[in-house]
Amino acid sequence: MSTAHLITVDWGTTSWRGVLWDANGQMLGARSAPQGILQVAPGAFEQAWMTLVGDWIHSGAQMCLMSGMVGSRQGWVEVPYVRCPATFETLAAHVTWLGQDELPMPVGIVAGLMTEQYGLPDVMRGEEMQIFGAAHLLQRRSATLVLPGTHSKWAVLQEGAITGFRSYMTGEVYALLRQHSILARLMPSTQEEAWVEGAFVQGVRTSKEGPLMSSLFSARTLGLVDRLPSEALPSYLSGLLIGHEMNAQVTAEADMQTDLKGPLILVGSPELTLRYRIAAEDLGVQVVEPAGHAAATGLWRLAQTLTSTGRVR
Amino acid sequence: MSTAHLITVDWGTTSWRGVLWDANGQMLGARSAPQGILQVAPGAFEQAWMTLVGDWIHSGAQMCLMSGMVGSRQGWVEVPYVRCPATFETLAAHVTWLGQDELPMPVGIVAGLMTEQYGLPDVMRGEEMQIFGAAHLLQRRSATLVLPGTHSKWAVLQEGAITGFRSYMTGEVYALLRQHSILARLMPSTQEEAWVEGAFVQGVRTSKEGPLMSSLFSARTLGLVDRLPSEALPSYLSGLLIGHEMNAQVTAEADMQTDLKGPLILVGSPELTLRYRIAAEDLGVQVVEPAGHAAATGLWRLAQTLTSTGRVR
Repeated sequence: MSTAHLITVDWGTTSWRGVLWDANGQMLGARSAPQGILQVAPGAFEQAWMTLVGDWIHSGAQMCLMSGMVGSRQGWVEVPYVRCPATFETLAAHVTWLGQDELPMPVGIVAGLMTEQYGLPDVMRGEEMQIFGAAHLLQRRSATLVLPGTHSKWAVLQEGAITGFRSYMTGEVYALLRQHSILARLMPSTQEEAWVEGAFVQGVRTSKEGPLMSSLFSARTLGLVDRLPSEALPSYLSGLLIGHEMNAQVTAEADMQTDLKGPLILVGSPELTLRYRIAAEDLGVQVVEPAGHAAATGLWRLAQTLTSTGRVR
Repeated sequence: MSTAHLITVDWGTTSWRGVLWDANGQMLGARSAPQGILQVAPGAFEQAWMTLVGDWIHSGAQMCLMSGMVGSRQGWVEVPYVRCPATFETLAAHVTWLGQDELPMPVGIVAGLMTEQYGLPDVMRGEEMQIFGAAHLLQRRSATLVLPGTHSKWAVLQEGAITGFRSYMTGEVYALLRQHSILARLMPSTQEEAWVEGAFVQGVRTSKEGPLMSSLFSARTLGLVDRLPSEALPSYLSGLLIGHEMNAQVTAEADMQTDLKGPLILVGSPELTLRYRIAAEDLGVQVVEPAGHAAATGLWRLAQTLTSTGRVR
């Protein structure tokens, strides 16, 4: 029988994901909850953690390591960003440990990363563990990675260091337009929505033609003149936005001064990675996805590093 | 004493604007109401019109001419779009008259325009009257015009014909991001919002550097790292979006195959035209604004044409 050893938590804005590990890196359990940091009242994080981790607390686990927005200003404790370039070792050196008195085990929070592009700051919290986890699962020390989501991230890993990244508001803008804009008026309810791959690809291709704020309006006019059926409009809109991101980023690769061999690494939920995969393939970009939990894998490895170097508080 | 002669109405999605004219083209009265077509129940347009026009009905006016979304599927009567290129005369030939029996005077609705760019349809309703009105006020038969708004329009007028146009969702996307996105969390309430010209210009300049969906995220990060104060963030966001539109369109001028001498004509509310003027000047584009009501002027002239050629129903 395996004994519990470690708890890892990926605690984001809208969701919570925990894994219980044994000492050999086998998962003993995994659970998730819609308890993102926005659902937790200020000052109530310890109580929320206790409830979410529940029985795992008494399982014998010796440490809990967390990443994500739990380390933001709106989270449990604000953990300062670490600047790029950042290696796995840099992150190990910047774990913030919570006051231990009231907690049943050491609880550490991983720092987020900050970078600068075109004179603008950019930030991530949680994706850094997904990146190192995915790179480990795929045995890569250099790669370009894309992590679709509310604010998708494109990151460059070079010889084991995250050298830079860029955020896109694609997911959030899609949700706003899908639900609250004039475009929503011609679309079916989200319950009745279908995935129409042909319309998605049409959106991806259209996104290359003109400026985004103009192309978006075609998600209305193509419906108005009956050239796209109502049920295809959400997929078309998604293609416009993901195509804009994919095109811009593939064009920008030169700017990011990368010359990385091998396919683009795609990390995220299957529903989203399907779309990014189709858009990438339409652009002739090869992609690969890690098999396994990227964030949990990154956190597991970080815990190992901390334990082996005696840096657990 | 002047006698009432004509009523013109610009009836849009969210607002209603009416003017009462005498036979010499003098305005006897002007009024507006937040009674856009979305505020009118289906089948209730005649009643709404009666209420809004009120005392003007019995003033002696012999005709009412309307433009805007009142001619859309959600309006009083759906008026088919007219295809570009379209002259003032084309529009005069396509006025749709409402059934006269129940109405105290002939009531006509001007058709909207449809065009095609990059294989995508685009539409306008109401702006065509603003365009012809502005061109008349400025004595121009050829020009590029920009009409800022929820869905701003860039139109090309050549030798008296609107040859093409393009819509941008700039205004609507700004409102969605300003009110409902993560960017709103660092911003002051709209009541406490200030106009910060420097931040707006910074947004315009930033919009040239990278892809829009990525630049938008800097309206969060610049606030997070205290490089822009909270009260400047809405102006910065506005600059990013208007800058994107202005840049794209100035670049696209070549595509639109125009070679128009003279300044860009800017038509809209002072709050919006101020922003477009600043963005244009930062790009080295000269602009001019008509003095007077562009839409009402266009409608007045159209009524004159219809009357003089005996085409009032």
